[in-house]
Amino acid sequence: MALPTLRIIGFIIGIFLITLACGMLLPILTLVIYGRINEIDSFIWAGTITLCAGLALVLPGRPEHVHLRPRDMYMLTTASWLVVCVFAALPLNFLQDLSYTDAFFETMSGITTTGSTVVSGLDRASPGVLMWRSMLHWLGGIGFIGMAVAILPLLRVGGMRLFQTESSDWSEKVMPRSHMVAKYIVGIYIGFTLLGILAFHMAGMNWFDAINHSMSAISTGGFSTSDASLGKFSESSHWVAVVLMLLGGLPFTLYVATLRGDRMALFKDHQVHGFLLMLAVVCLLFSVWLWMSSKHDYLDALRLVTVNVVSVVTTTGLVVSDYSLWGGFAVMVFFYLTFVGGCSGSTSGGLKIFRFQIAYVLLKANLNQLIHPRAVIKQQYNGYPLDEEIVRSILTFSFFYTITIGVIALGLSMLGLDLITALSGAATAVCNVGVGLGPIIGPAGNFAPLPDAAKWMLSIGMLLGRLEIITVLVLLTPAFWKH
Amino acid sequence: MALPTLRIIGFIIGIFLITLACGMLLPILTLVIYGRINEIDSFIWAGTITLCAGLALVLPGRPEHVHLRPRDMYMLTTASWLVVCVFAALPLNFLQDLSYTDAFFETMSGITTTGSTVVSGLDRASPGVLMWRSMLHWLGGIGFIGMAVAILPLLRVGGMRLFQTESSDWSEKVMPRSHMVAKYIVGIYIGFTLLGILAFHMAGMNWFDAINHSMSAISTGGFSTSDASLGKFSESSHWVAVVLMLLGGLPFTLYVATLRGDRMALFKDHQVHGFLLMLAVVCLLFSVWLWMSSKHDYLDALRLVTVNVVSVVTTTGLVVSDYSLWGGFAVMVFFYLTFVGGCSGSTSGGLKIFRFQIAYVLLKANLNQLIHPRAVIKQQYNGYPLDEEIVRSILTFSFFYTITIGVIALGLSMLGLDLITALSGAATAVCNVGVGLGPIIGPAGNFAPLPDAAKWMLSIGMLLGRLEIITVLVLLTPAFWKH
Ligand SMILES: [K+]
Ligand SMILES: [K+]
Repeated sequence: MALPTLRIIGFIIGIFLITLACGMLLPILTLVIYGRINEIDSFIWAGTITLCAGLALVLPGRPEHVHLRPRDMYMLTTASWLVVCVFAALPLNFLQDLSYTDAFFETMSGITTTGSTVVSGLDRASPGVLMWRSMLHWLGGIGFIGMAVAILPLLRVGGMRLFQTESSDWSEKVMPRSHMVAKYIVGIYIGFTLLGILAFHMAGMNWFDAINHSMSAISTGGFSTSDASLGKFSESSHWVAVVLMLLGGLPFTLYVATLRGDRMALFKDHQVHGFLLMLAVVCLLFSVWLWMSSKHDYLDALRLVTVNVVSVVTTTGLVVSDYSLWGGFAVMVFFYLTFVGGCSGSTSGGLKIFRFQIAYVLLKANLNQLIHPRAVIKQQYNGYPLDEEIVRSILTFSFFYTITIGVIALGLSMLGLDLITALSGAATAVCNVGVGLGPIIGPAGNFAPLPDAAKWMLSIGMLLGRLEIITVLVLLTPAFWKH
Repeated sequence: MALPTLRIIGFIIGIFLITLACGMLLPILTLVIYGRINEIDSFIWAGTITLCAGLALVLPGRPEHVHLRPRDMYMLTTASWLVVCVFAALPLNFLQDLSYTDAFFETMSGITTTGSTVVSGLDRASPGVLMWRSMLHWLGGIGFIGMAVAILPLLRVGGMRLFQTESSDWSEKVMPRSHMVAKYIVGIYIGFTLLGILAFHMAGMNWFDAINHSMSAISTGGFSTSDASLGKFSESSHWVAVVLMLLGGLPFTLYVATLRGDRMALFKDHQVHGFLLMLAVVCLLFSVWLWMSSKHDYLDALRLVTVNVVSVVTTTGLVVSDYSLWGGFAVMVFFYLTFVGGCSGSTSGGLKIFRFQIAYVLLKANLNQLIHPRAVIKQQYNGYPLDEEIVRSILTFSFFYTITIGVIALGLSMLGLDLITALSGAATAVCNVGVGLGPIIGPAGNFAPLPDAAKWMLSIGMLLGRLEIITVLVLLTPAFWKH
């Protein structure tokens, strides 16, 4: 890799580190408000180190006339997330009695908006730590949207080229140039967060809980300020969480288009239809099942099911009750839902709705082709033709997704974990959901008891999942390093 | 569907039924030899009914000048297996105290060479029943090879077009016309079975056990004459089983080519390389693991691992010890191995080696393409170009395979089965392996305790798996029934 390329990658990472250091002001402010001055040190140290590192990378200046090739973008993307995570783990490592492994796991879980936690006793934890965890979600969420909108389509990873905004049929009026899109998206993200804070507060949370849960829900992150997660709070706050998680799971580019005048942008999008329809059907059927097989009245069953299902499908992982106690069928349903994910261009992880829809289009066409071998069958999704490149990249993506989960699960089982913990743990990490199954890492559990090696494996899984696997795998091929 | 088409489908099914009725002579002969005359009735009744049904379909004669279209072939294939299974279940239903559900399950498990059993107390079971179960495997095995060689490539199901013998580079000398191929394959199949009987007998089995296990192993079926399966027999018989299962898991067309003078046919085939290499690596590493983590000496560990691994990968399901007692890692490994399967053109089920190899070629090419977006990357497998149709059909196949297992597992969990039993039960049925995981259907278990509904679901799964899913699914599309 040429020096100017490295310098530009360093420059961009430097900007991220400076942003991160600024983000540390929020927990510092929180600690000041709560009068926990003795805990401020760690954040100041961590912030100073991060700021210095950032400045060291930015000050030499951005080399001009350097064009990043796709291969440089892969390096940039993976390196950014990794370096940011290393620095973002510092406050937790300095402050809490967390080992660096635990701090790194918690931080990776935060910025990838996975939300698996190794911190127990959340209800008594330092407000600075709680705020920093939420901040990691919030920054990670907006970072991921930016990556999904601006970088992944260019890299043609996992069929994301479909969402290349430049090649879309939106006129420039509705979908402005990329730096404008970025400003809109950040504005909308902040707007939703503020509305969420207000709504959670009106639903009975104190301001601190409202701020944390709003940041956690809109980023589909899943960290909470209580070991009981949403279960500690009022029933109306559960519905607020549902709305926020849904907002976080929809494509942010469509909000931009809506604001710019295309009022129907959200309503005519196939992915949004599929997402909402699927959720409605699953919640309805599943709540009827729970109502009939338990002592809950119907509205109660509907609420419990909706919060948990929306939480898992949007890959948030805030829970309202231990659904693993609902029996084998429920466990199986939640295991499957772990993989689904929200819409592309949102903060959600998972396989994502559009890939299932494209698979459906392809499979239907393929079955018809078998019956009419000579017919020419048009294959479209959301108005775009599905060419061979998209088919192959979705095939590649799905295969590596499965392989990654399989390999991590195998690794976990080698450490002595049982099949359900290993499989669901690997899946929940790679899909960035954050809640597993079984007594250890289930809805009522915590990732702290896992061996250190398992935490590192899961951290790698979270990162791979967040970067849509392929972005990282490309770096591991011999072809990448040959020139 | 036109009347002449129906008549020709009926004619072919009639021939299968007559063959089946002739097959019932073997258990009758067995019962005569064992002097169990009182049990002969059921086979005579079942044989007579089957023969009459067969004759009724054949006697009107085969309509001439009727050409079967692909859509008729789908109907023929699915109907044949289903009708044959309905009649083949009669003796078990008449003779044993088995309900029709149990008899149907056992028979479907037999002819699909799955080998899951609901009969317990095998060591004391009627020799007629045991012989009929082995006969089901043996007929099902050769039937499947025939289907895989002659029909599936024409139907272009799941990438099988790669194995269309007519379009291959074999000269007519090496690969003769299809009716000749059929004769060769049947001859080789009979030859291997006879050699297997001899070898098992020399390894200490009595002739009856040797005959049953040879039929069960070469067809990669898995029924045994003992509840302890191979565990009851000598160590040398385990190695005989390994060789027979491997022979059953290799492509029978390559044996034909070898016999016809292409001595290197087996050795230059990519699928065979991949299959044997994979098995060697897995057995070696896994046996070292077992040796280090248990009290077995190395040769013992190697034998136990090799028999069980070869058994699961070739989708035989004969077991030599309860590997689920080896701990979480072993359970996970065997869960994964359930999906692998043997070679195409063999008696094995599962996803099959060539699909993994093609996936590997495609994934490697796709990663390289991401790094060099403008390069033209050639994609070949075993010397054949991988065109878009093959890629799409493999994508369709893998997706529906996963979906089928997922749906059946969900259904099983609705009946109250736990996640491991439900997932492994669905997988073992669809992959035609026959051994699941967990206390109920694991290596030491038996499918009898499952509820009737579960047995029907699993029976459907076995049939779907055996017919490579798509062959059946096509029948369920509206397009199939429209004209
Ligand atoms: K999450
Ligand atoms: K089998």
